[in-house]
Amino acid sequence: MAGSRYSGKDSPGSKSNYDVDYVIHYVIPPEEAAEAEASFSQLITALSSAGFATEVRRARKPSSLLVFVRLASDRLLRSQVYRSRVQDWLYGVRAAAPAPVPTSDEAAQRDSEDKEEEEEPVTEAERLRIAYLLITQPRNEGGAGIVTAQSAGGHGQWRFVKSIFPLHDHAFNREWLTQWSTKYSLEDADIEAIRGRFGERVAFYFAFMQSYFSFLLFPAAFGLAAWMMLGKFSWFYALVNCLWSVVFFEHWKMKEVDLAVRWGVRGVSRIQHPRPQFQFERESVDPVTGEIVKVYSPFKRLARQLLQVPFAAACMVVLGGLIVGCFAIEIFITEVYNGPFKQYLTFLPTILLTLFMPTFTTLLTKLAERLTDMENYETHDAHQASFVQKIFVLNFITSYMGIFLTAFVYVPFGKILVPYLDVFQLTAQKFTADAKPLPTKRWEINPDRLTKQVIYFTVTAQVVNFATEVIMPHAKRKVFKTVEKVQSELSEKTAEPVKDSPEEADFLERVRDEAELEEYDVTIDYREMVIQFGYLSLFSVVWPLTACSFLVNNWIEARSDAVKIATNCQRPIPWRADSIGPWLDALGFLSWLGSLTSAALVFLFHGSNGGPDGSPADIRGWALLLSILFAEHLYLVVQLVVRGVIRKLDSPGLQKEKAERFAMRKQLLEKMMERDISEETSGPGVSGAEKITKASLEEEARKLSVAGEGRPEQLFWLRQRGASETIQVGRSLIAEAAGNYTKAK
Amino acid sequence: MAGSRYSGKDSPGSKSNYDVDYVIHYVIPPEEAAEAEASFSQLITALSSAGFATEVRRARKPSSLLVFVRLASDRLLRSQVYRSRVQDWLYGVRAAAPAPVPTSDEAAQRDSEDKEEEEEPVTEAERLRIAYLLITQPRNEGGAGIVTAQSAGGHGQWRFVKSIFPLHDHAFNREWLTQWSTKYSLEDADIEAIRGRFGERVAFYFAFMQSYFSFLLFPAAFGLAAWMMLGKFSWFYALVNCLWSVVFFEHWKMKEVDLAVRWGVRGVSRIQHPRPQFQFERESVDPVTGEIVKVYSPFKRLARQLLQVPFAAACMVVLGGLIVGCFAIEIFITEVYNGPFKQYLTFLPTILLTLFMPTFTTLLTKLAERLTDMENYETHDAHQASFVQKIFVLNFITSYMGIFLTAFVYVPFGKILVPYLDVFQLTAQKFTADAKPLPTKRWEINPDRLTKQVIYFTVTAQVVNFATEVIMPHAKRKVFKTVEKVQSELSEKTAEPVKDSPEEADFLERVRDEAELEEYDVTIDYREMVIQFGYLSLFSVVWPLTACSFLVNNWIEARSDAVKIATNCQRPIPWRADSIGPWLDALGFLSWLGSLTSAALVFLFHGSNGGPDGSPADIRGWALLLSILFAEHLYLVVQLVVRGVIRKLDSPGLQKEKAERFAMRKQLLEKMMERDISEETSGPGVSGAEKITKASLEEEARKLSVAGEGRPEQLFWLRQRGASETIQVGRSLIAEAAGNYTKAK
Repeated sequence: MAGSRYSGKDSPGSKSNYDVDYVIHYVIPPEEAAEAEASFSQLITALSSAGFATEVRRARKPSSLLVFVRLASDRLLRSQVYRSRVQDWLYGVRAAAPAPVPTSDEAAQRDSEDKEEEEEPVTEAERLRIAYLLITQPRNEGGAGIVTAQSAGGHGQWRFVKSIFPLHDHAFNREWLTQWSTKYSLEDADIEAIRGRFGERVAFYFAFMQSYFSFLLFPAAFGLAAWMMLGKFSWFYALVNCLWSVVFFEHWKMKEVDLAVRWGVRGVSRIQHPRPQFQFERESVDPVTGEIVKVYSPFKRLARQLLQVPFAAACMVVLGGLIVGCFAIEIFITEVYNGPFKQYLTFLPTILLTLFMPTFTTLLTKLAERLTDMENYETHDAHQASFVQKIFVLNFITSYMGIFLTAFVYVPFGKILVPYLDVFQLTAQKFTADAKPLPTKRWEINPDRLTKQVIYFTVTAQVVNFATEVIMPHAKRKVFKTVEKVQSELSEKTAEPVKDSPEEADFLERVRDEAELEEYDVTIDYREMVIQFGYLSLFSVVWPLTACSFLVNNWIEARSDAVKIATNCQRPIPWRADSIGPWLDALGFLSWLGSLTSAALVFLFHGSNGGPDGSPADIRGWALLLSILFAEHLYLVVQLVVRGVIRKLDSPGLQKEKAERFAMRKQLLEKMMERDISEETSGPGVSGAEKITKASLEEEARKLSVAGEGRPEQLFWLRQRGASETIQVGRSLIAEAAGNYTKAK
Repeated sequence: MAGSRYSGKDSPGSKSNYDVDYVIHYVIPPEEAAEAEASFSQLITALSSAGFATEVRRARKPSSLLVFVRLASDRLLRSQVYRSRVQDWLYGVRAAAPAPVPTSDEAAQRDSEDKEEEEEPVTEAERLRIAYLLITQPRNEGGAGIVTAQSAGGHGQWRFVKSIFPLHDHAFNREWLTQWSTKYSLEDADIEAIRGRFGERVAFYFAFMQSYFSFLLFPAAFGLAAWMMLGKFSWFYALVNCLWSVVFFEHWKMKEVDLAVRWGVRGVSRIQHPRPQFQFERESVDPVTGEIVKVYSPFKRLARQLLQVPFAAACMVVLGGLIVGCFAIEIFITEVYNGPFKQYLTFLPTILLTLFMPTFTTLLTKLAERLTDMENYETHDAHQASFVQKIFVLNFITSYMGIFLTAFVYVPFGKILVPYLDVFQLTAQKFTADAKPLPTKRWEINPDRLTKQVIYFTVTAQVVNFATEVIMPHAKRKVFKTVEKVQSELSEKTAEPVKDSPEEADFLERVRDEAELEEYDVTIDYREMVIQFGYLSLFSVVWPLTACSFLVNNWIEARSDAVKIATNCQRPIPWRADSIGPWLDALGFLSWLGSLTSAALVFLFHGSNGGPDGSPADIRGWALLLSILFAEHLYLVVQLVVRGVIRKLDSPGLQKEKAERFAMRKQLLEKMMERDISEETSGPGVSGAEKITKASLEEEARKLSVAGEGRPEQLFWLRQRGASETIQVGRSLIAEAAGNYTKAK
């Protein structure tokens, strides 16, 4: 099975990583051997200049090499860590300035090493991140300037660099998988461990999973109760479900900030990593910093961004057309057609879908990638956000359109539309060249269709997904390995077998395995979860058990994602992140849309309002729209309220941050105050100020007597000398007024 | 006229303010003379302890005093200014730490005075704000702890302090009014001048006015064109108007931030002034700061906040009932009734409205104040925001409900509802005791009613408003003054006349005038503008000339508000602010609601869709709802887009802030780098790192030889010594692969 690597004993090569930071997989196309050789020298020189130690070994295929890379000196690491922490501080990511790492001489360094280690240890993730940045940063920033062929578009100096990847920590992975497979729920410590190894970006995904899983408990329990007591299409279930999705969404928004603060990465998204592929039009001087920046016309970019509209339309037409077509054929065959080969023809739409859907999706994803490349963003994050947007549109259509069709076209308008399906009949007749009409049965709307479809998407599809995600790649790898073995056995006659030194043979074998794994892309996992959330938010009113199914699925999903990272993918580069990024907007959108669809579904299908047998004439359009309008505004109001309440709650992370900032402020203020007191003996205290008043008045009077006759302004303030005289005069005035009063009486 | 004070020559008392910072108006109820006397001594002592010089004089009424207050020493002012600026810095309001004001000895102070003055002058507004804080802050914070009777609820030690106000700067006021009355449009410098005198809170109002005024130019021009070419209820006008309101709203949100940054007050709302009236339930330790804080149960507060719902309902019932009642009577009398006294009875609803509306509004405002007090907020801002919310509900009903009734009840449902107005007829018949029915005419919906009403609210009501705001108080004061004169002449027999020293008599007379003016409340002016914006956003599709009327009105309004501040009100205490506060939400709400009402109005009244003569049966409910739904979502999408675009634009203020922060960062980073370079000679540069690599490798090898046989990890990294060996080995491997390839061929 998938986790088999860790099921038995440690394989001999996985005990140690031999201090390797990164492995560079270098592929030499035999017809370009000379170029590859020249480029290889440059590669090693660049790495060495940037401060890396290198070793080269054969890869599995004779035409590729593995370059092992390691930060040569601890001093370089420490200085880079310090630099990165200072940058964090300057960008406001961390509140306190980092303690400088002493680098004056070896002894001092060793002395304070333990202390520094105690105060703020360099985690493995931090080390790997900094090493990766050093490998990929441009040379003028002190890096080696190496990019993989894929991210450079297959061109340029480094087109032979297939991948740059860190090695798995197999001891950790083994413990991780063993632990997770035996415990019911994930704890903060588990997420923390992931963060230390795989960085905040991956940790955020698991934190989201954990949060989502524990939030799912409520709709699962409530859904079960609703399924038993309220049945389908209950408005009460819809209301509670919407409320839940609002609470979940707002809670996650806060949780995200809280985590970012606790992990010390809040605002990390402001520190942008430039995309090496970015092509600038001209250089100009930044009005703020005075530095020279590379500029690409925002209008050109906007023009290209507008291509998203035709892209969405194309998705709609291609995927939508496929879905509608298959839908129509399916209905015709299963519910109208009654002729020969029915038992075979039933599979036709499924076959069409399984054939064309992945093809079209792959093509459109490629198109989305191309479009995003064309938009030419300066930074990784902007690029990724734009790509995620397109992917979301794609997945929205493939995932939800079938159900939308059933709920809002097939059921209400079926009676009008189904007669048009005769077109199939006519086509079929043409081919059979038979005069008599094909046998059909009287058509009726199938009331269970919607429920069946929802169950399919929320149960069957999840299982299929699991299989393709975890089992497939494993099986594929097994097969490939066997094929390769056979191939290499065949080619053994021409090439000598790879000879490794016996003490590193196992290790190299293992690295060769890892080199062939795919890169881990957290986007795919997020997408799966967000689309799943969509089913719950949009359609769970059709089948309240949805959340139960997801609860079970997600328990497995978290574990299978762990297995995927540990065994089916290369170890991810531990990037930092301060949120789940563009998926947050997608979640918010689905949560909002859920209020509309739930209201519409309840209205259309609940008991008396038309029901599955109703025809569009029976549906009161204004009432439907009114209920949608009402539901949406209720949703927006509830969202405002929930947001207000959740903002008032203090999260531990924010409290910690506040406390830190307060401490800093207090310290500074105390320093100021001390100086204040030491320099000025008489502050605005109760006792001292009186003296000031008198002293300054006397001084003023002295000046006045020198200058001769005073101005009226000065005379005005000298009428009552000091507070006591003012009191005296005031008293007499008050007494006078009181006297007048008694006299008047 | 209103500005008459500045129309002739300076009155003799207004030339100078005699260095007075604040005047405290102290009122002695004759029956409490003893308590007032004791309290007066305490007042003067407290002021004197806080560092103020004091003088006392008679007020106009013999039973009240004027206490003149002045910061006694320049040193105190400077130390307080410095303290306040340090606080700003610590709260992140200002980027750079303030230069400390030298206070060591008199000479040093004088030396650097000019320098400091140059760098960051203390504006009059700053001086007055700090003096006011010193008067009102609690004693343990170094202030005098004095609160006015009104804000203390008429209780406590200081219940005789009627008001604390600064004196007008008449030279400035005169120039201000003269300038503004002669120029067409306000410039940034004008706003800046106001900011220096009256503080940011007032300046923000005028900045908003200025921004709103210049934005009005577009809908005024477009409205005129639409009125001539498109007529009423044009969907195109509605669309453009909505778009305009979105752009205006989003633009102002950015402008607000920009101004706050330029004025150095961004984030000032975080520095909260505690409300003296706040009553705490218990004291607890703040988990963040470790300080003791006063706590009021948030649940209790929430329970009291929920009273807003019955409050809104009460407003709805009372004011709504009044409006509906008068509306019904009016329709009955003008459009149905045809009997005797018709010419007199026509005025009945107007009379009822003018009698009861202000009474009810005043009562409900009092209730709103009471409710807000009950909610017991810790800070002024929270209190004010909650009060503004209630006031907005109140004004929303009084301002818009009449038009809503006409548009969405009278016109569509008139034919159904008007027959019920017979109840008036029956009542009338009972009183007349006449058997024969009163003469009525056949009723028809008056199609011009809606337009007339909108014109009334957008033209007539604005003029009336102007009159009540500026002319009325002036006239009232004149009358009161005459009455008082007569009274005092009558009472002259009992009390001696007030005798002032001749050199300060004019000045005192002027201060006595100012003491009787009202406090300026910027909330009222904001309310007026926000409600006006509402008419434009909600109903201008009925009468596209609305914006033209507002354009004229607002030109006058800005000037009349200046006149109001300068002559009809006490000089406002120059508070700081970083936005227009709670009114921003109100603006956003009205802008959003505008998309709904405009769509509904266009649908109901535009040409073929029913028209003014239509009955509800003709209106297709679903189409109405669909158009509203569509308009709203179009609005929300447009808002998102506009927000996105506007965020990309850099405002001058934000650019300035960014440049400052960048400069600070750069400076710090350079310092760090310098240390880096000086301490570590070989950075990760191109030339130096190679040495490190070799050196460390050699060292490692040495260690290894000492320790005997190396571990496989160590051996692994020693196979290729340095980059050159790696390159060599790599080359041979590549050559081998290429060889295999050619052999295989």
